[in-house]
Amino acid sequence: MVNADMYTLGANRSCIRDLFEYGLQRSAAVGKENVFDYSLGNPSIPAPSQVNQTIQELLSQLDSLKLHGYTSATGDAGAKAAIADDLNERFCAGARSEDLFLGCGAAPELVSVIRALSVENAEFIAIAPYFPEYKPFVTSCGGVFRVVPADIPHFQIDLSALESAISEHTQAVILNSPNNPSGTVYREDTLKALADLLREKSSKVGHPIYIIADEPYRELVYDGAAVPFIPNLYPNTIVCYSYSKSLSLPGERIGYVYVPEKCDDHDALFAAICGAARASGHVCAPSLWQNVIARCTHLRPDLKAYDENRRLLWEGLKSFGYEMAQPDGAFYLFVKAPNGDAKAFSDLAKELDVLVVPGDDFGCPEYFRLCYCVSRDCIQRSLPLFGKLMEIAKKAR
Amino acid sequence: MVNADMYTLGANRSCIRDLFEYGLQRSAAVGKENVFDYSLGNPSIPAPSQVNQTIQELLSQLDSLKLHGYTSATGDAGAKAAIADDLNERFCAGARSEDLFLGCGAAPELVSVIRALSVENAEFIAIAPYFPEYKPFVTSCGGVFRVVPADIPHFQIDLSALESAISEHTQAVILNSPNNPSGTVYREDTLKALADLLREKSSKVGHPIYIIADEPYRELVYDGAAVPFIPNLYPNTIVCYSYSKSLSLPGERIGYVYVPEKCDDHDALFAAICGAARASGHVCAPSLWQNVIARCTHLRPDLKAYDENRRLLWEGLKSFGYEMAQPDGAFYLFVKAPNGDAKAFSDLAKELDVLVVPGDDFGCPEYFRLCYCVSRDCIQRSLPLFGKLMEIAKKAR
Repeated sequence: MVNADMYTLGANRSCIRDLFEYGLQRSAAVGKENVFDYSLGNPSIPAPSQVNQTIQELLSQLDSLKLHGYTSATGDAGAKAAIADDLNERFCAGARSEDLFLGCGAAPELVSVIRALSVENAEFIAIAPYFPEYKPFVTSCGGVFRVVPADIPHFQIDLSALESAISEHTQAVILNSPNNPSGTVYREDTLKALADLLREKSSKVGHPIYIIADEPYRELVYDGAAVPFIPNLYPNTIVCYSYSKSLSLPGERIGYVYVPEKCDDHDALFAAICGAARASGHVCAPSLWQNVIARCTHLRPDLKAYDENRRLLWEGLKSFGYEMAQPDGAFYLFVKAPNGDAKAFSDLAKELDVLVVPGDDFGCPEYFRLCYCVSRDCIQRSLPLFGKLMEIAKKAR
Repeated sequence: MVNADMYTLGANRSCIRDLFEYGLQRSAAVGKENVFDYSLGNPSIPAPSQVNQTIQELLSQLDSLKLHGYTSATGDAGAKAAIADDLNERFCAGARSEDLFLGCGAAPELVSVIRALSVENAEFIAIAPYFPEYKPFVTSCGGVFRVVPADIPHFQIDLSALESAISEHTQAVILNSPNNPSGTVYREDTLKALADLLREKSSKVGHPIYIIADEPYRELVYDGAAVPFIPNLYPNTIVCYSYSKSLSLPGERIGYVYVPEKCDDHDALFAAICGAARASGHVCAPSLWQNVIARCTHLRPDLKAYDENRRLLWEGLKSFGYEMAQPDGAFYLFVKAPNGDAKAFSDLAKELDVLVVPGDDFGCPEYFRLCYCVSRDCIQRSLPLFGKLMEIAKKAR
């Protein structure tokens, strides 16, 4: 007698995890160097050295009871002040400490925000391609999950499709920019047009339609691409941030929710987010990591290794005739399957021990995802195989 | 348009937190040394020195990507093996790595277990006095929360009241021993009789009735009190453990769920717990802390300071005529309000700047809770005030 939905969620691994586990098995069988695993978005750049130095300082400077003790549920005052300062310096955000809730990474933060907005018949809209976990997050909160099809080949937002998807029950649109899996960044003109549409629709339906901005990749951009700070364009934006990618701390589970002061129903919304976190058993974000963030929130990643991988892979694939989304951010390339069926392509690639994730679970089955958090050697040695796969695909036409 | 239940949970602080915040205000007004704050269960013994030493070792020995990287959702293999070994050495538990799920402390672990068991009309029973958050945990999962009245004055379990509370919908009984707030430990004979009752009732209702054992205080016992390992008496027991109290790491959010292999529906239950955690946005427990636990799970707290506080307070209060639950574990004394109304007593004590938590939210309004994680000085200087409060109470009779 267990909950059937929870059983299903627990018993079925994601396609990404399945591929990753397969990769581990193949590595054991044929040697790690012969498996070209582009499946998992696990940072391959170490945390900035200041992070571990800060831990050393904290261990020597701070009393154990303070360092490892409970903080308030919304987070340590010093960490919140540091984050607010950083947002204000960079984005003139007007952020206050009381607008911030420190959470255990973007995933539980998203769940708390979605649950806070889950009134009766609530609908949440994701823009394909989207991070697959959004779906169980929404449905587990009792919400209805709606998807706007991908804006191929630019991977911005198809606003007329979005307009059709909005109903009187729409509570929020979930955005993820820089995007996993496409690597694209939503441009300012896209976001301004989106803001205009949401303002108009909010007024029509008689309640705010929020943007939930899932932003773990905010600092991972290349060639000087600009990532607009969405609350500055549309104040009804709730930001869910994580230090997993920017400080290469994915296992440590630290991030924050930012609810702008100018947001409609600010106080009720903030309280409901706290309540939703409480209902999930949130007590506080890990206190050592809150203390690290208080001193390190201004650090930025050194993206040189990702950028070099990105160029190498992009240019190699282009030379074989692959088409791809504009890879301005995150650490993914989103590539069109030569014959338009990414699942079939992924299966074929698997036979050559090249592991790529088909876009089906991201709501975009024509494309596959490559995570370029890999070694240079992996890219150099696997590129000829991508050439071979293109040849096979051409012959199959 | 926010979820009303979540708003209520977020907007209303617990009585304990209210008192604690009041204490901070009073401290600012009259001086910290003049406020005798027994409200919050925050460990006052620092983490064993080996914990910080282990962090130092990990920083110098482990690669940053490994130390701070994702682990599997159920936890790092090394940490799970170390925990299983420890359970097997101490309790002959027969624990395997695959029976363990590393979580972010007992609170989210409890929520995942409760949610995993939340089938239609599911009922969960708590034994008063109980930790107040059990109620929102159960109701937020859609379950019905039932309470068995306190077994005053022994604070064991009133089995005939429990028998009446069990229905065909009962999914689990939540136990907390050593108990917060009473400080009592459920004796082996109590637990054996409980196991007999639950076996009989499970067979009658046709499905297992689980025990959910919330055990953050397992290692905090005095005078050699024995804490039976409940799965050895009743295999349908799911243990939710936390290192918050035993290693004085309450802010760091690390613990585990143990589902014994012999438990009914083991695999489905374990999968549903994983699924419930996933639905809450659980990715993994903080990876640095998983690595610490892999090396420190065998450490035990040095309870000398707690024990001395316990004796001092117990003997002082007894000399004034207070009646108390047997304080064998945790770090609480649960004291009968002289005139049987703990709320009135707490208000009266507040006027003398003595902060004690009335038992109302614990389901036991005749008693109040004292947390003795305080300084020796606080006890010595506040004891005369407890004497004064008893005098006032006597006069009011």
